[in-house]
Amino acid sequence: MKTFKLTIEYDGTGFNGWQLQSNAKRTVQGELEAVLFKIFGKRVPVIGSGRTDSGVHARGQVAHFRARTDMPCDELMRAFNHNLPPDVIVLAVEEADHQFHARLGARRKTYSYSVLNRPFPSALLRRQCCFFPRRLDIHLMKKEAAAFVGRRDFSSFANVDPSRRSDAVRTIYRLEIRRRGDMVLFLVEANGFLYKMVRNIVGTLLEIGSGRFPPGSAQRMLAAKDRRAAGVAAVPQGLCLENVKY
Amino acid sequence: MKTFKLTIEYDGTGFNGWQLQSNAKRTVQGELEAVLFKIFGKRVPVIGSGRTDSGVHARGQVAHFRARTDMPCDELMRAFNHNLPPDVIVLAVEEADHQFHARLGARRKTYSYSVLNRPFPSALLRRQCCFFPRRLDIHLMKKEAAAFVGRRDFSSFANVDPSRRSDAVRTIYRLEIRRRGDMVLFLVEANGFLYKMVRNIVGTLLEIGSGRFPPGSAQRMLAAKDRRAAGVAAVPQGLCLENVKY
Repeated sequence: MKTFKLTIEYDGTGFNGWQLQSNAKRTVQGELEAVLFKIFGKRVPVIGSGRTDSGVHARGQVAHFRARTDMPCDELMRAFNHNLPPDVIVLAVEEADHQFHARLGARRKTYSYSVLNRPFPSALLRRQCCFFPRRLDIHLMKKEAAAFVGRRDFSSFANVDPSRRSDAVRTIYRLEIRRRGDMVLFLVEANGFLYKMVRNIVGTLLEIGSGRFPPGSAQRMLAAKDRRAAGVAAVPQGLCLENVKY
Repeated sequence: MKTFKLTIEYDGTGFNGWQLQSNAKRTVQGELEAVLFKIFGKRVPVIGSGRTDSGVHARGQVAHFRARTDMPCDELMRAFNHNLPPDVIVLAVEEADHQFHARLGARRKTYSYSVLNRPFPSALLRRQCCFFPRRLDIHLMKKEAAAFVGRRDFSSFANVDPSRRSDAVRTIYRLEIRRRGDMVLFLVEANGFLYKMVRNIVGTLLEIGSGRFPPGSAQRMLAAKDRRAAGVAAVPQGLCLENVKY
């Protein structure tokens, strides 16, 4: 039995998220498993580093599967990409240690979030960014963002998902905000993320940056440990899982 | 009667090009005229700076229309964007000189062409770049590209389009090639373009850069003044009309 590590890029627009669903909706995991079924003639589960929601993208999702096979990695990669639809692509197939587990072994993940900040939306970027027309005070947003960095209880920024564990303490190592022309890019690296955590943080920072919430709100919302204290989630299409470290 | 100048962004993926067709296919011009029909209750022709083919994008297409109206420009812009589908957006509406003509008055146009140069295609960029897996010698491509700059007869790089005038002399002011990671970006500015000229030039430079055509080919192909002498057109989705100058 060998363990294979996959690095995967996908355009989340046409998917009902990463995770296989019982209702036959299109998912990334489902597409990958369909190829493995074709290769091995039976179901081979593909375990991702975590789910991504409907509409969320990935440039470097990581997953693993275990199989008894002599197929070399480059041949597996060709088989994947020959059979996968154009909105998902396997960027790398590597043989991993037997104990490798894409979800349990993940030490750090980085997400990006892209905001188009101009008076009118974009035809070309509409699937891969959040459109936000109000003026943003990036300097203030950077100052507020500092409140999220470090080991924090993110209860105020986690939507409830009954299937996930309840401990809300995570460590954000990095939360960068950069403006490049009309685009505002967020980069968040953490040891793990709660459900909708990045989108809730970004949504809140946008409200602070546009003056709807006063300076100091990030700190106050964190301290409240109550989801109702913070801002609403930013839309899924701005979010992209950039990489996972083990 | 007033003349209005429009600046338009569109994602060409879902369009059969710019130009209105008799066969009821979806075109950018058709979408814009549909909005004007809604506003004015009659057909108002929208004249573009030039056509773009099926699948070709624009970040700064320019067009004009003439109408008897007191609607201010910002209201017209809101009316457009409220009624247009998400893959086309009006970035600016300005009142122009009565003699302004988007096609006849165009002095310079700039197109970009994006190539993804890595061993495997991209799920996220697939609609907005050409995938080219072979190794490219960018230094050689830049040297060859110099042959195209200046006043040249581009017969070898023009597909035949019976509806267009036959003179094939154009002036390219600028042909830049830049690599940024896996992406190779072409920027071409000229006083006008023949049918498929940018795509034919890029397709040829890719063949030179990957060693299929020898150094010196660009010069030789230009001198031949014969479409059969040059390389094939690069795919439409890499092409984007960046701006038009008057």
